[in-house]
Amino acid sequence: MSPINLKSPITVAHGDGIGPEIMAASLRVLEAAGAQLEIETVEIGEAVYLQGHSSGITAETWDSLRRTRVFYKAPISTPQGGGFKSLNVTVRKTLGLYANVRPCVAYAPFVETRHPKMDLVIIRENEEDLYAGIEHRQTDEVFQCLKLVSRPGCERIVRYAFEYARANGRRKVTCLTKDNIMKLTDGLFHKVFDEIGQDYPELEKHHAIIDIGAARLADTPEDFDVIVTLNLYGDILSDIAAQVAGSVGLAGSANIGDQVSMFEAIHGSAPDLAGQDKANPSGVLLAGVMMLNHLGQSPVAERIHNAWLATLEDGIHTADVYKAGRSKALVGTKAFAEAVIARL
Amino acid sequence: MSPINLKSPITVAHGDGIGPEIMAASLRVLEAAGAQLEIETVEIGEAVYLQGHSSGITAETWDSLRRTRVFYKAPISTPQGGGFKSLNVTVRKTLGLYANVRPCVAYAPFVETRHPKMDLVIIRENEEDLYAGIEHRQTDEVFQCLKLVSRPGCERIVRYAFEYARANGRRKVTCLTKDNIMKLTDGLFHKVFDEIGQDYPELEKHHAIIDIGAARLADTPEDFDVIVTLNLYGDILSDIAAQVAGSVGLAGSANIGDQVSMFEAIHGSAPDLAGQDKANPSGVLLAGVMMLNHLGQSPVAERIHNAWLATLEDGIHTADVYKAGRSKALVGTKAFAEAVIARL
Ligand SMILES: CC(C)[C@H](C(=O)O)[C@@H](O)C(=O)O
Ligand SMILES: CC(C)[C@H](C(=O)O)[C@@H](O)C(=O)O
Repeated sequence: MSPINLKSPITVAHGDGIGPEIMAASLRVLEAAGAQLEIETVEIGEAVYLQGHSSGITAETWDSLRRTRVFYKAPISTPQGGGFKSLNVTVRKTLGLYANVRPCVAYAPFVETRHPKMDLVIIRENEEDLYAGIEHRQTDEVFQCLKLVSRPGCERIVRYAFEYARANGRRKVTCLTKDNIMKLTDGLFHKVFDEIGQDYPELEKHHAIIDIGAARLADTPEDFDVIVTLNLYGDILSDIAAQVAGSVGLAGSANIGDQVSMFEAIHGSAPDLAGQDKANPSGVLLAGVMMLNHLGQSPVAERIHNAWLATLEDGIHTADVYKAGRSKALVGTKAFAEAVIARL
Repeated sequence: MSPINLKSPITVAHGDGIGPEIMAASLRVLEAAGAQLEIETVEIGEAVYLQGHSSGITAETWDSLRRTRVFYKAPISTPQGGGFKSLNVTVRKTLGLYANVRPCVAYAPFVETRHPKMDLVIIRENEEDLYAGIEHRQTDEVFQCLKLVSRPGCERIVRYAFEYARANGRRKVTCLTKDNIMKLTDGLFHKVFDEIGQDYPELEKHHAIIDIGAARLADTPEDFDVIVTLNLYGDILSDIAAQVAGSVGLAGSANIGDQVSMFEAIHGSAPDLAGQDKANPSGVLLAGVMMLNHLGQSPVAERIHNAWLATLEDGIHTADVYKAGRSKALVGTKAFAEAVIARL
């Protein structure tokens, strides 16, 4: 009998721009913490696009993903110009990653924020809406993009949000749509929210129009708990929430599907920062923590999360969150990872 | 020879919810300041919808608008349920009000804000995008909404924004789109921005993706000057900007067309506040100031604006901006208007 392999197979992509640095830093932490991972490394993004794959991804990578079912992905760049599809969207849609889970938490007083009490999770529908990718030229002068919303799509994400709230001891779920204008599409999302909400009598349920909802999120994010919304609104709201919590550099996310899941930072590849050992690896590291929980390696996940918190609390900060007076040491990507490892 | 009529004809709608109170208060201020207006009063909104006009507006109102070419409009309500079109959108589209101009300014230290230096204007495309109103049911389970973007539409709004910046001594114009995903529609908007921007060498020009742009607007709004963007983004961003400046209750707007223009508060009819003499009339009053400038009655406009500022500075505040310690008197709608009049 061959020995049982306790390691979880995962597919890792190091990405573009700051991707390779922050992914390397993060993997060092995961390894040092004792995460049991069997890594298949794949190449995606810029180089792959330029090899002629318009989606930025190859058949081998798809094979790996179907095998490991877990994708740990650094940010990537899409080359300028037409003809290149967004890799993030291709992966999310091809693998049916319908739920994009984005926690945004303030780490006051260690990271400066105007909203020290903020602790919310955005559950973003991840396959439909304007991201369906149906866009065309009607005439030389008129272009169209189709916004698609289906009942099964709404039901799945809304159900996911309520289940998430219940499982994580959250008390309130807020649905944001623009159904005063888009009465059919956004109207359906709102209607499904009201229907499915009835199965969760213990949870507070709210709906607001996206414009005033976004304004409240920007101004009083501490009033929100779980937010469930359509794809594009979720994209915009999660950057707002992460930023007012302290920095978009601190937020990780999980893209959940029935078969495969993907874990990534919510920020981009920041090419201007690349290769300087300056970027904050926290977003991809916290995505890694979400991945370890998903893989059933929760004790390791918790150890990393605590060490990471201790690092922030000790005032060891990368440039994006460094604040003279409040912070103690300004460190680079590698040194930040070492500091986390020292606190494991 | 009959005497020349120096009064500008305008169409006024008192609206629903808090509409009648704030419009009455505002008209009292305009009159007391010596605005030369010949008012045609029309009914729109809830009552008109319920009389069976699915658009909330009657043929007589259209006649009045085509005659006066200026619409001073209080917020209205659309009844719940399908079958009622948004009156705001109907008016904007029918009359070709292509530019929605929304200044958002902090009035620190008189009104509490985290962004005392903020002073920006959002120029929102006002006819196209998902507001084209093309939405349908594909199957029982699938709904679609069409996002429409045309080159003439982009050119007109982008040109307007640059001309506005030039005429108002602004230095920087920022374009926000999601053209990494919507390469044709949002891509066209961005492209037209780059093209037309070349005619304005003296202005700083920037583009950002809407998600990170919205996050920056929420976090550091003082970095923005003029923003030009598509309809739905402009809707969301203007609520964010007005709220972080102090209150959505303080922002007025102008909807500009080639023939007709409309002036309104950016907030809604707040039915829960109606009839209590509590609402802040500032949004509709500042829309009135924009209207007087549009009508060539700038000295009166300035007198009102200064008296309004003096009222805020004297700490005479409605509940939405009242802050114990900072404010001196908590007043209602009518008393606020009287305080402005006393300072004319
Ligand atoms: C890079 C881009 C395609 C992506 C999105 O729009 O979803 C990003 O902004 C995100 O939020 O993950
Ligand atoms: C009431 C609604 C139709 C309107 C809009 O979406 O444009 C409002 O939010 C606004 O910003 O003027």
